[in-house]
This record gives sequence, structure tokens and C-alpha cells, in this order.
Amino acid sequence: MRILAYKRLLCGIATLGITAPVFSASAQDITKREAEGQNVATPADFDPASRTQETLLRLIDEGKNRNQTMAHLRYLCEEIGPRLTGSTRLERACHWAADRFRAFGLQNVALKPWGEIPVRFDRGECKGRIVTPVVREMEFTAKAWSVGTEGPKQGPVVREPQSPEELDSVADRLEGAWILRPAGAKPSIVVDRLNHAGIAGFISTATAEIVNTGGVKGVTQLKMADIPPIPTVTIRRSDYDAINSRIMDGEKIVVEFDLKHTLVEGPFPVYNTVAEIPGSTMPEEIVIISAHLDSWDGPGSQGTVDNGTGSAVTIEAARILTAIGAKPKRTIRFILWSGEEQGLLGSKAYVQQLTEVERKRISAVFVDDSGTNQQASLTCVEPMAAMLREAILPMNFAFPHAPIKLNVAPRMPRGGASDHSPFNAVGVPGFFWGKSGTAVYRHAWHTQNDRMDQAVPEYLTKNSTVSAIAALVLADANTLLPRAPVPAEENRRQELPTPGRPPQLDDPSNLDGD
Amino acid sequence: MRILAYKRLLCGIATLGITAPVFSASAQDITKREAEGQNVATPADFDPASRTQETLLRLIDEGKNRNQTMAHLRYLCEEIGPRLTGSTRLERACHWAADRFRAFGLQNVALKPWGEIPVRFDRGECKGRIVTPVVREMEFTAKAWSVGTEGPKQGPVVREPQSPEELDSVADRLEGAWILRPAGAKPSIVVDRLNHAGIAGFISTATAEIVNTGGVKGVTQLKMADIPPIPTVTIRRSDYDAINSRIMDGEKIVVEFDLKHTLVEGPFPVYNTVAEIPGSTMPEEIVIISAHLDSWDGPGSQGTVDNGTGSAVTIEAARILTAIGAKPKRTIRFILWSGEEQGLLGSKAYVQQLTEVERKRISAVFVDDSGTNQQASLTCVEPMAAMLREAILPMNFAFPHAPIKLNVAPRMPRGGASDHSPFNAVGVPGFFWGKSGTAVYRHAWHTQNDRMDQAVPEYLTKNSTVSAIAALVLADANTLLPRAPVPAEENRRQELPTPGRPPQLDDPSNLDGD
Repeated sequence: MRILAYKRLLCGIATLGITAPVFSASAQDITKREAEGQNVATPADFDPASRTQETLLRLIDEGKNRNQTMAHLRYLCEEIGPRLTGSTRLERACHWAADRFRAFGLQNVALKPWGEIPVRFDRGECKGRIVTPVVREMEFTAKAWSVGTEGPKQGPVVREPQSPEELDSVADRLEGAWILRPAGAKPSIVVDRLNHAGIAGFISTATAEIVNTGGVKGVTQLKMADIPPIPTVTIRRSDYDAINSRIMDGEKIVVEFDLKHTLVEGPFPVYNTVAEIPGSTMPEEIVIISAHLDSWDGPGSQGTVDNGTGSAVTIEAARILTAIGAKPKRTIRFILWSGEEQGLLGSKAYVQQLTEVERKRISAVFVDDSGTNQQASLTCVEPMAAMLREAILPMNFAFPHAPIKLNVAPRMPRGGASDHSPFNAVGVPGFFWGKSGTAVYRHAWHTQNDRMDQAVPEYLTKNSTVSAIAALVLADANTLLPRAPVPAEENRRQELPTPGRPPQLDDPSNLDGD
Repeated sequence: MRILAYKRLLCGIATLGITAPVFSASAQDITKREAEGQNVATPADFDPASRTQETLLRLIDEGKNRNQTMAHLRYLCEEIGPRLTGSTRLERACHWAADRFRAFGLQNVALKPWGEIPVRFDRGECKGRIVTPVVREMEFTAKAWSVGTEGPKQGPVVREPQSPEELDSVADRLEGAWILRPAGAKPSIVVDRLNHAGIAGFISTATAEIVNTGGVKGVTQLKMADIPPIPTVTIRRSDYDAINSRIMDGEKIVVEFDLKHTLVEGPFPVYNTVAEIPGSTMPEEIVIISAHLDSWDGPGSQGTVDNGTGSAVTIEAARILTAIGAKPKRTIRFILWSGEEQGLLGSKAYVQQLTEVERKRISAVFVDDSGTNQQASLTCVEPMAAMLREAILPMNFAFPHAPIKLNVAPRMPRGGASDHSPFNAVGVPGFFWGKSGTAVYRHAWHTQNDRMDQAVPEYLTKNSTVSAIAALVLADANTLLPRAPVPAEENRRQELPTPGRPPQLDDPSNLDGD
């Protein structure tokens, strides 16, 4: 409460343009307060002499009172839509983000190619429903880079035969049929014969009500000729039960799927979108604020929490810093990765392209990639703790009700399936924002539910403001962020990209800072 | 808007206890205004000379500003619960309502027996779930006056055999099994053998997600010995599909039902609950405000929209009138019927017990039995229209945004499965409130969804205030409400009670006045 009252005073001062007090608690002070259960700054921490701290107060005012993260997010998710790596929509998003950066006044704005995708996949509107004996929309998915239906395909449902004899008994019903694979079953031993029986496609089943969006494996090496010609959809469990139960009761079931999949042979270049606020005195030293712009694209998904939110936060952090005319000593570089969902491809390629000297000049890399909850924690090693505590001080001053925690670990996180890990693998400090809040990330993550209704505006206001603070404090610090020891050679090898093997999950240990 | 501003002025005057203006538009004025698309009173309608109209302003103030309908409803639905005719809970509700009437200061408060129910049915907490291979609560119902399970009964699910051969093939699996009847199927030809095979019970299926609550037929003649000894539950369609689909896939399904049904041999008397504000100058002439207090009692239901809402509105109308010290010329009688769900038994018996002279002295009977939406219309014949328009004038003055419409019909409604119809059948004007609003009556009516979350407080505030206005205006009118012609003898016969044949539905034509 004490801080809150003081904060109101400060906001008033900042708004009036009067030189305001600044944050001057020492790292030792903060450590002691944390040990005593205090997380936030006190009035004694503010000193009216620092240029950086005066800028921070204007930053907080801009971030809290004129925040535009939701506008960026709405454009990304509703105007552009989900953004599969290599797709037309992702390319449009890269250009849109670059235009935004330019409009804000950032410099060195560019789409930097990191590789090629041999086949472009663009997903149009997809529909699936039971037509007979009830009409019922289904929730379902189909993998990116798989074939569509070339128009609505209506047909009866036939349970997948499990033996040649079973197949013979239904052979006259296969033409145009959708083949229902029993829940939990693998493709039957007669699947090759089915593939040549004129069927409409296969229906498999999710274990529950969520259908996971994703893509075929090996997209960096994909050849058009290798793509199976028969579509497969995965429906949610309740839709499966409705169909399967009616088959049990001897009813004839007709379903219709319309999968508008467009596959175009490339190759197509893919990009990281980069923009900078150049440093005023040490422009060759860099702080990176980043998120991946690509997403999965299954029916229903708008790519909101993975990772429209992090992308919009990164764009807004850039806007806030340019809006207040920040002139940091070091360069602040904003990067929107792509290829993340296919195995951190954009960030891995970026790290590989850096020289040893360039890597040493990167102070820190921040990655926002865990959804709409509020940034709540960072994990570092002891040499970094003092500088990060100074950065956290104004964050917790601005948002005292949910203070950010610093976790000091014996070593920097290894692995963690997001874009910070390629940096940590080569000794560049990579930070993945831990989060906390009311949103349930796993409800939406990689599912049909990853839509705008999941976004929590007040958390995103905080995240963009906090990201801008992190950038500014580190860019104006006296030194680069002290390094952790470079990991042993075997760890580094483990982190190198493995083409065509996408990670199965974001590392759950990264999902929540609490 | 004009009226609204005037209303605020009037409320202020009413609150200050100053003699306020009154409603004096003629029926002709009102007819003309309605024809011109105007529904409400104008300032010119108010005349400071009438005792009744001054009372009406205080009534409106009490009804709008200190309304307690929701408190009555919460007690009825949450403290007492659903109120099956003949059950312990209904009897408790009758006594509670009588206590409320006495506490308000009403007179001649009594539980008036109208008949007997031979078997009391009290339903305790009932549960049903799939236990294996998933755990999943089910939504289901079981008929009132059917046997329960005598403790939780867990057992495998077996599809109902349809022939002696099929029965033989599953005979060793029947002991303790729940027999799943295929969706839409009637009992199979081997149902008698199943009844003697030691099964736990039968499972039948609703056509969709709503399960209809109800009871066995012929409860007024029911004998304990005639009640089938094997329980039957009806589950919603999605639960059926989940079970049936897994049987199709060869999985073993175990379910558990716990039906706490208590059946007690009677007979037990059943009551209409009656209370009066005696008339000051014509006490033998009566205006009746009423609703049925009984409800169905299936698992989930709290008897809220059918008809906790009408009951609470009736109780609150009594409270409002006594709170303002109304001294009507005629007697206002409040009646909470029971046995409505079994065929309007309480109201039919009440009408049968009235002498011809008593029937002639009833000015009008109002019935609120169509849920939580707001009272929106009345249907009458031409001779009644002028007096009812005078009653509607202050209603629409009090609630100008949703004015009540008067429908003038060639004859009074016949049929209509609620408690007004036995009155209309003998020529006593019976009015069923038509309603409009955002609530979807059929979502909750006679289903597991008939719960407190359905109640819309602002509508119930209006309904109780409007009901009190109707009572007061008619009780203070110069004459009884002019009568419609008595219907022909064949219509009267049609309306007489048919014991043991409950109506299938409330008359949909009565559900909404719009």
C-alpha cells in the first residue's frame, strides 16, 4: 500500500513532466528485502538525478496509459490469422510487423532470411460436420502440409476394417467413404488396400475434447511427391463417440469435410523480422527483445497465445521505447523469429550465423513465448543477479501487485523448447519469461482454442511495459550482463538444430514462473 | 422518456409521503393511445384525489425499491429444494409459505387439503457416473415414485439383448449389470427375463442433452405393490454415446448409480396454501393471486422456473400489499396450488368445492406459471377490457420500458395446462401471465437445468409488483370484473380433472405473451 500511494504521486509527477525521483536501491538491499518477504521498491530507492530513471518513469506512463498491445494482437490474429512457417500469412505478418517498426521510427528494419521451406502450405477455411442422421458441426484438425479435400467431400462413415476378411465384407461400401479409425488404434494392416479403394479419407480421434494442431514431420526436406494423397482428419472425442455410437446402433452416418489446403512447390525463403533502436554510445553491443511470429494453423486457431501475444508484446515494447524517444547507450534489437514451431529454426540459424565476437556483444536475449499470462519470473545465474535485480526494481514499482521474481539457479536453463535456448547453448544469456495468471495456457496451446478470446489485455499491458523496461535498463547499464560459464561441449551439441524433428512440447518447466 | 422523468418526480413525492397524483385515463383514452403506438400513462392521467391511486404509488415504491422476491425464491429452491406433490419438502414449503403469510400480517392463513396421495416419494441426493474406463459424471433422471438403488450400485454395462438367443449369449454377465437400452428402442421382448436376472437396472437415453424430469402415471391411485422393483434411469445423449461408443470398441464399461428414493405408504393429505387480506367493504368478493408451489424433482432440478418463481412472486405480492397497509374493498386471496404437475389437481379440486354463489363472487384469478421472464400480456374478452386497461395503466407507469399488452380475444382461453383453466371452464375469469424476456423457459422447464441460476431478479421484481397492482386495482374497482359468457357444457366437461393423466406440457401458447 505504501508503494502504491507513492506510485500515484510519481505518476502524477511524470505526467507533469517534472524531473522525477529514480530507483537507486542496491542489489544487496533488494536481496535483503526479498529475504524479508518484500518484493518492491520503497520511496528511498528513488533519486532525482539519473537520466535513465527519468526515462523509465515516462516509459511506465506510456506503457500503462497508452498501451496498444491488444491492437497489434487483434491485427495479427484477426486480420492476418494463424501464421504457419512458410505460409503466405506468415510472410504477410513479417511485412506488416516490419511496417509497424518503420512507422514507430525504428532503424535497420529488415526481413532476414534464415532458410527455405520447400513446400508452401496455405490453409483456407475448413469445415467438418455430421450430415446424417443429425446435423452437427465437428471440431477437428488436419496436419499442416497434408492434402485437403478439393471441395466438400460428403460420404458415409465406415469403421476401418482390421483384417483382409473384414475389408472384403465392406469392400462395396468404401468408394467415397470416410474411414473411422477406432479410438486409440493404429492404422490397420489393410491400410494400403484402403488407400487404393477410392475412399474420401481417414478419421482419427483425439483422446479428449481438445484437438492438437501441428504439421507433418520433416518439412524442411519435404517433397511434393512424398505427400500422401489421402486426407486424414482428427476429430474430438465427443464427435467420435456420437458417430461411433450411432454405427453401433445400426444407423447410417454421413459426414462432410471441406479442407481447403493449398500446397505450392517452392522453395520459399523464410525470415526473422528484425528492427533496432541503435545505441547512442555503444551501438555494437546489443540487447534483444524477441518472440516468434509463426504459429500452428489448425482449424479454429488464430495463433493467439502461441505466440501472437509475445509478438504483440515485442512490437509494443518497440513502440513504447520509440514513443518516449528513448536513446539507450546500447542497441536494442527486436526480433520476431519464425520456424519456431518446426524446431526453433529461425533462432538456431540466427545463432549459427553470429560470429564469436558478435555473440560476446549480445548482453541478453529475452523471449516471450508462454501465452497471455503476466510476466512473473526470470531465471539467471549468480553473476547476473545484481544487474537483473536493478532491472526488476522499476518493473515491480510499476506493477506492484504481481511482482516479478528472480530465480537464481546453479546454471542457465538447458533445453526449453523456445528461442532462448539456442543462445544459452552458446553462452549468450537467454531468458524465457515465466508467467502467472488466470489463463490456462494448455487449454489453448496448439489447439483449436488458441483464439482472441484467450487474450487478457491487462497482462499484455504489463508484459510489453516490462519488456521495454528490461531492454532499457540493460541497454543503459554500465556493463554487458555478466556471463554464465559457457556450457560444456556436449551440451552445446545437444542444442544444435536437428532438421525435421520439431519439439513435442514447450518445456513445461518454462510455462509458469511460480 | 417523458413518463420516465415524471415517474422520478412521483417516486420522490411518494417517498416523502405527500399525497401524490393518480391515474385517471379512461379506457377509451388508453385504447386510442395503444392504437397510436403509445402504451403508457401520461402526466395528464394523474389526479390527486383518489385513495387507491395514492396507495398504488406507495405500492410501486415498495415493490421496486424493497423487493424481496429473490429472498423467497432462494429459500424455496435452495433451503427447501424441489417440491414434488405429496413429498416431505412440499409439505415443508406449504408450512413455510403459511408462516410467511402470517408474518406479513395476512389473515385466514391455512393449508387447505384438496385430496390425498397414496404413496409419498422423497428423493435424496442422486448420483450417476461412468467409473471405468474413464471417470465422468453423468446427467440423468429417474421418475418420481420409482424405486431407487438402496445404496450405490456399481456394475458393468451390457447392451439390452433383443432376442432370447442374444440374452442367452450374455446371461453370465447380467448379474449386477446395468442394461443399456439402445437409443430410441422400446423394451425388448426379453425384458421380463431381464427383470428376473439380477440386473442392477435399466439405462435409457434422452434424445439430446436435456433429460426431462417427471413421474410415473396414475399417482393418485398408486399402490406400493404395483411399483416395479427394478430402477430405470434416463441419461443424456452424450453420456449414452460415450458408453455406447466404448462398447463398440470392445471396452469394458462400469457405471455407478446411487438413487436415494424413499417411498412411504400413506395416504398423505395434500394442500393448497391460502391466505387473505380481507376486504374492507365487500369481503365476500374475491380477487385471487396464485401460483403452484409444487414442482418436479428430478436430479439437478430445484423447481425454480416451474414454479418457484411464480410462488415467490405471489408471496411477495402479499408482502408488498401488507407492507403498505393496503385496505382493499374486496378480499385479496393468495393461493399456492399443489398437484399442478399431476394434472392441475389442487386448482381443479378447489373449483369443484366452490358453490355457484362463491364462483360468482370471484372477480378474477391470476396465475403466474411461466418462469422467470417478465409479465408481458393478459388475454381477456371485450367486456373485461376496460377494467383491465385501468389496471395495466399503473403497471406500465411503473415499468414503462416493457409495457404489458392486453390481448382482446373472442373468448377466454380454453385448456392451457395451468391453474387458470379450471376457473375459465366454469366461467370464472382466469388469467395466465404471458411473459417476455431473455430467459429461455424450455431450457430449464421440467429438466435438470431448472435451477437458481435461471432466475432473473429484475423481472421478478416487476412481476411481484405488477401482481400486487392487479390485485389492488381489481379489489378496489367499482364492480366485479365483467364476465365472459359461460362456455358450453362440452367445454366444461373437457376441463374436469382426469385423475392420473398428467398433462404432457404446459400449453406453449401460454408461454410467451409476445
